[in-house]
Amino acid sequence: MQKLPNITTHFSDWYNDVIYQAELVDQTPVRGAVVIRPYGWAIWEEIKTLLDKRIKETGHKNASFPLLIPESFFKKEADHVEGFAPELALVTHAGGKELEEPLVIRPTSETMVHFMFSRWIKSWRDLPLKINQWANVMRWELRPRPFLRTTEFFWQEGHTAHATHQEAHDEVLMMLQEYVDLAQNYLAIPVVTGLKSETEKFPGAEKTYTFEALMPDGKALQMGTSHLLSQNFAKAFDMKYQDKQENIAFPFLTSWGVTTRLIGALVMTHGDDKGLVLPPKIAPIQVVIVPIFKKGADSSIILEKAHSLASDLKERGFRVEVDIDENKSPGAKFYYWELRGVPIRIEIGPRDLEKQQVIVTDRLGLSKGAVSFEDLGQAVEDLADLVQKELLKRALAKRDSQWHKSEKLAEFAKNIETIGGFYQTGWCGKESCEQELKKHKATTRCLLEKKTYDACFNCSDPSKQDVLIARSY
Amino acid sequence: MQKLPNITTHFSDWYNDVIYQAELVDQTPVRGAVVIRPYGWAIWEEIKTLLDKRIKETGHKNASFPLLIPESFFKKEADHVEGFAPELALVTHAGGKELEEPLVIRPTSETMVHFMFSRWIKSWRDLPLKINQWANVMRWELRPRPFLRTTEFFWQEGHTAHATHQEAHDEVLMMLQEYVDLAQNYLAIPVVTGLKSETEKFPGAEKTYTFEALMPDGKALQMGTSHLLSQNFAKAFDMKYQDKQENIAFPFLTSWGVTTRLIGALVMTHGDDKGLVLPPKIAPIQVVIVPIFKKGADSSIILEKAHSLASDLKERGFRVEVDIDENKSPGAKFYYWELRGVPIRIEIGPRDLEKQQVIVTDRLGLSKGAVSFEDLGQAVEDLADLVQKELLKRALAKRDSQWHKSEKLAEFAKNIETIGGFYQTGWCGKESCEQELKKHKATTRCLLEKKTYDACFNCSDPSKQDVLIARSY
Repeated sequence: MQKLPNITTHFSDWYNDVIYQAELVDQTPVRGAVVIRPYGWAIWEEIKTLLDKRIKETGHKNASFPLLIPESFFKKEADHVEGFAPELALVTHAGGKELEEPLVIRPTSETMVHFMFSRWIKSWRDLPLKINQWANVMRWELRPRPFLRTTEFFWQEGHTAHATHQEAHDEVLMMLQEYVDLAQNYLAIPVVTGLKSETEKFPGAEKTYTFEALMPDGKALQMGTSHLLSQNFAKAFDMKYQDKQENIAFPFLTSWGVTTRLIGALVMTHGDDKGLVLPPKIAPIQVVIVPIFKKGADSSIILEKAHSLASDLKERGFRVEVDIDENKSPGAKFYYWELRGVPIRIEIGPRDLEKQQVIVTDRLGLSKGAVSFEDLGQAVEDLADLVQKELLKRALAKRDSQWHKSEKLAEFAKNIETIGGFYQTGWCGKESCEQELKKHKATTRCLLEKKTYDACFNCSDPSKQDVLIARSY
Repeated sequence: MQKLPNITTHFSDWYNDVIYQAELVDQTPVRGAVVIRPYGWAIWEEIKTLLDKRIKETGHKNASFPLLIPESFFKKEADHVEGFAPELALVTHAGGKELEEPLVIRPTSETMVHFMFSRWIKSWRDLPLKINQWANVMRWELRPRPFLRTTEFFWQEGHTAHATHQEAHDEVLMMLQEYVDLAQNYLAIPVVTGLKSETEKFPGAEKTYTFEALMPDGKALQMGTSHLLSQNFAKAFDMKYQDKQENIAFPFLTSWGVTTRLIGALVMTHGDDKGLVLPPKIAPIQVVIVPIFKKGADSSIILEKAHSLASDLKERGFRVEVDIDENKSPGAKFYYWELRGVPIRIEIGPRDLEKQQVIVTDRLGLSKGAVSFEDLGQAVEDLADLVQKELLKRALAKRDSQWHKSEKLAEFAKNIETIGGFYQTGWCGKESCEQELKKHKATTRCLLEKKTYDACFNCSDPSKQDVLIARSY
């Protein structure tokens, strides 16, 4: 195993190495496609479990829509096809024959879902209709990067239909809030929310809300989005229904999703020179127990105790692994589990056994010391809590230190390209000013609800509201 | 809602109607692709949860491999490409360009998984390697039928590598046993297990074990398979490793899977003229509570009690729904939930409330009567248990009544085409005799371990072992 590149000076190399060394992913011969290995997939399963529970508790039901969508469906909503056309993968042949119409591997499922909605929604009694799907989708990427940008990725896509604009808007904000809760309280990643600009919004949507995090290298990461689609798609798919007053009406639609990109965000936000650091609430293995064997001595008593402590901790709801490999030194094991970011490590050797204690350490080095067998459960709970909070605290401090305020692009143009970070400024709202940012490889990330600047960052027109600008992944 | 066709006289029409009326699936404009609606998907989620737990408990880890596989990968194992070539869907264009090599949407992932295995397995220390994937796969079907045969379907595919043939064989049989347990003890579907014949086995495998059920119309349904791939694929993908004796060796591989077809099996095995009948252990809704409102009276007290009983039952681990629709008559609700196969129904009206009781019925009509609030939890547990057992008992009796023994094809050829059923007979093992079955649209389903016949069903050669013959889905 090679040493990881320095995370401060070679962040991008560090990321590319750590995801392979920690066995989150592996490359494949298919351009832009990766294998998500068991440890990486286990993180996704933790995220899925948490979010799926909340999606169901907020009244949505899971379903499954086809992978392949007729190409013509994409053409029904003009902005939508324009936005997605360059990224589509096409199936042209199947069952030994050329297809009459090419089928698209879904880059997102609005068109298929809406086609079905138009069959299912006939009366106001059919509303609201609240569906979610966990699925793989495909967008052909020129510069793929594991988790952040891959041709195939995994996500959930929620699709809902409502009788009123207000209700649809409430839905969009409710799911955005669920995402923020997941990001901050489970992934320990501070996020900022706001509307996307007209150029950055989802193709075909009325409004796109985003939640954005800032990675340690100063680049923003769009963590997920929640779209108020309003009636554009409903009209494109002729989604007529009879309302309570027996008039013909169109429902107001929403869609919202988060992807396996969240794993990339986790890696970048919390990692250090030793490797991953996973927040306890999302770590597939929260506690690793390393038995320390004395040469020549009987290891069975220590092993037995290690397993019994593990099962006590499992009963308390922890995800625990005992590293029983007898061919590896404790040092090699420490290195291995640190690289994988396991938040809490417990060591137990012959002397500890005598003293009825273990040595407990955490991945952040906040505390290290002896804990009696008796107190272990509570100690692990407290420490997991401490690590979880500390990770969010550190990430927040880091993010805030990279959040700059500036009146004019001319002032921050150089910094945005070198040190990166968020730049809060004023904006007139014109696309022509937004386009100026491209020269500095930056984009508007989201509109803020504040208005602290009088003028636009680029022109002399008045600012409508503050905007957050950054380079992004 | 139309009345369902008679299940005895029009089984096939009944199936086609019930899956739509019970809202398990809906048709889409893409040939062979269906939407699995929330109620259908919820059944799949129950199956997934049960099986995933066992897959993990037996030492496998979930991972995710790419949807698209280079066409050339399929050509590495000669039998494999021959078996799958006619069913492949090809991506030829992506990102606005024609691809240099077409990519295949995976019909199964052996080739991609084995390519990765050849990277991961370098030493005997890397074995056994036990991976599972929950995924969508695609096989172009000429005669699609929801759940039974669709172009896209959902499954889990296990892939393992072992140091010895024996260990791989043990793995294949262990997973087959897990499947049998799932089928019989959860889905309440009796199955028979055995080897597939050489013509019916998985393309590229050494041996394929199958578990087969018989549907009420007399057609067999292959419920799933477990393959001993042995070293064919390992050699095709150059999966060399260093064994304990420092020799170069090839691992022994297995793969095994079950699909959304299990939902079709559930529907057909247990359904009746009123609709679905779901075994309690797998039903997404196990208990429905129907409050009976008295016209003009305050419904809030009854509703409150219904919800409180529901939460008591949920605490006991039951999946419960309260049907609060005030615009539907109790009769309409009964019809609705019977169609959906909910195993237990609880009614509560004003008089019941006075008497501190509810009326409990089950979907099979085994029992109907008043149960006090106090005894409800235990009564529901007992009744769920009773329904679960009764369903398996009935299915087993039905299956056994359709299991025929016969010496010669000439004797059963007519019956196999008309009444259907399993036909146990002797077989010499020659493909030419097996081919005779095609004239009667039948195939060998599996080889049995018994040998009760001296001669082949077709020729006069000695029988090697008994074989089970049927028409199949």
